[in-house]
Amino acid sequence: MSFVDIVESIRKDVEAYKSEKRTPVYLALNESPHPFPEGLLKEFFEKVDPATLRTYFDSPCEELVKQIAEYVSTERWKARVDQISIGNGADEIIYNLLNMFKKLRIFIFPPTYSCYEIFARALGVRLRKVPLVGERLNLKFLKKVLSQDCVVFLPNPNNPTGHLFEEEEIFFLLKTGSLVVLDEAYYDFCGKSYVSFVEEFENLIVVRTFSKAFCLASQRIGYMVASSKLIDAYDRIRLPYNVSYLSQMLASLVLSKRDIFFERVRRIVQERERLKEKLRRMNFKVSDSVANFVFIYLEDDEKERMHRLFLENGVAVRKTEFGIRIGVGSSEQNELVLKILEGFRC
Amino acid sequence: MSFVDIVESIRKDVEAYKSEKRTPVYLALNESPHPFPEGLLKEFFEKVDPATLRTYFDSPCEELVKQIAEYVSTERWKARVDQISIGNGADEIIYNLLNMFKKLRIFIFPPTYSCYEIFARALGVRLRKVPLVGERLNLKFLKKVLSQDCVVFLPNPNNPTGHLFEEEEIFFLLKTGSLVVLDEAYYDFCGKSYVSFVEEFENLIVVRTFSKAFCLASQRIGYMVASSKLIDAYDRIRLPYNVSYLSQMLASLVLSKRDIFFERVRRIVQERERLKEKLRRMNFKVSDSVANFVFIYLEDDEKERMHRLFLENGVAVRKTEFGIRIGVGSSEQNELVLKILEGFRC
Repeated sequence: MSFVDIVESIRKDVEAYKSEKRTPVYLALNESPHPFPEGLLKEFFEKVDPATLRTYFDSPCEELVKQIAEYVSTERWKARVDQISIGNGADEIIYNLLNMFKKLRIFIFPPTYSCYEIFARALGVRLRKVPLVGERLNLKFLKKVLSQDCVVFLPNPNNPTGHLFEEEEIFFLLKTGSLVVLDEAYYDFCGKSYVSFVEEFENLIVVRTFSKAFCLASQRIGYMVASSKLIDAYDRIRLPYNVSYLSQMLASLVLSKRDIFFERVRRIVQERERLKEKLRRMNFKVSDSVANFVFIYLEDDEKERMHRLFLENGVAVRKTEFGIRIGVGSSEQNELVLKILEGFRC
Repeated sequence: MSFVDIVESIRKDVEAYKSEKRTPVYLALNESPHPFPEGLLKEFFEKVDPATLRTYFDSPCEELVKQIAEYVSTERWKARVDQISIGNGADEIIYNLLNMFKKLRIFIFPPTYSCYEIFARALGVRLRKVPLVGERLNLKFLKKVLSQDCVVFLPNPNNPTGHLFEEEEIFFLLKTGSLVVLDEAYYDFCGKSYVSFVEEFENLIVVRTFSKAFCLASQRIGYMVASSKLIDAYDRIRLPYNVSYLSQMLASLVLSKRDIFFERVRRIVQERERLKEKLRRMNFKVSDSVANFVFIYLEDDEKERMHRLFLENGVAVRKTEFGIRIGVGSSEQNELVLKILEGFRC
């Protein structure tokens, strides 16, 4: 084999990751509808040190890790700094975990986060797919196959549907001994987390992000919480200096002023509930999303028609295998979404 | 095998990447001695858009790629945007290339950049080491082993010695058909580049960085130039959105005001030449570095003694297998280095 063969096989087998064209109303990536707070941005500017910019800055991200430990701690459990590592977005963590555990049998549960498959193809890692039954894990089948030589990737709330899995489903996974990568990217919109169980379950990894609730998608900051053994191993395989100085500063800043973002989250949650209710009244089959998006189950032809209708009206939404995912936008954007959908079944 | 086995084997086999303790005078990482220009920082602040911060921003880095294409173009060759990809530091590119081509036979030439080995161990990739003979490639041996199923990683100027390889050595590598990853991290301090040969040699990848001459180490921005086929394949396996919005903006800004940095580079080069001359007069065996550091060849015991002497005087330098590497600092810092070394052989 030569490098030419490898290049050709990637070009044949791995789809290029394409950014979508941005329309005037862009609700395809579950970004925050609120711009980053201007006051905080000013505070940020005042803190940037030109003498630090020139340096390789704090690869363990010590200050930020301390703040995250405090943020994720609960009444029943206090996180330690050796249980946390920071990523260039949660995506880098997922990408690295796929690569790190590629020799094990890796499972995903469609409909699920699209990047698991995109990254696995990029890395030449094989994934096993066990589709959800309704919105539940296929426990009957999984009981037979999951063991200590398996890894499962599960978003909770799920993506693209936004629904939460039952506690018994999560604990079932944990008790199989499989490594469980629980992707809590949308945690802040529902408050349900399993992060406090990393002490009891050494096979649990919880992944989180600053991209959604904290308005920092562009700055690529995610984190993982797990046993100190797992974090230590992970820190040895990740790229040093993977998160930039300015990104570390911004993440620290939003955590120190988190109430601003919690208030915004409350507004997004209100809008999400309003959207779900209105869509149900229009007789759409809507999942019980607790994230910052709603999901409409649709047959293929209706899905295509709805996607086109949105695009014709300048709104980008996410078309997935089982339906359409729509990010919760500003009140005006959500009104536009509802107005477009009112015309859908005429 | 279970995930516990993988975690344990990483903890056993892969050294943790440790950031060095920063001393008052820190010359261990070849950072720019000059802080980021305050005027440019103000321009940067004026351009940051709070509504963009909340979004997933421009994964192909279109604007920045255009500017880099213009920057790397020469009289004999104009770069196209499809010949360039951006990395979360040049290190991410090196890390990804090692993983992408791990099935081939990969060669490095010690003394060389330490991260090739650190990343290879992290990725479980085997490296073959063919030590330099003096400061030259072992062509006699390499003639026998290099072919299309090989990859070579070579810094030029070399790191940690800072010397340039001869043109005939570079063209020898290219003509073997091996994939040649030429690491031009220190290009700006010598002006010698092979980037204009990516058209003739489809097996050439040139890697560059904004971390050294452009005072942006903390922001993690590197790039690669290669044939469009190779770039296309690489873009399919890299993490999408790998470079943050603010990092893209800063890199664009420094390229648009590059004269500021060229002036600083001229001063660093002057200081480097002064340092080399003085060190030679002190009878140290100094390599002919054309980078932003100098290198003193030393036997083990002298190396340890010199390293300790620097630390006792609050100066961090880099101890490597064959000697001590010292970053070119400000005039005052360089004076301190010389003063410390004057006391070395008493």
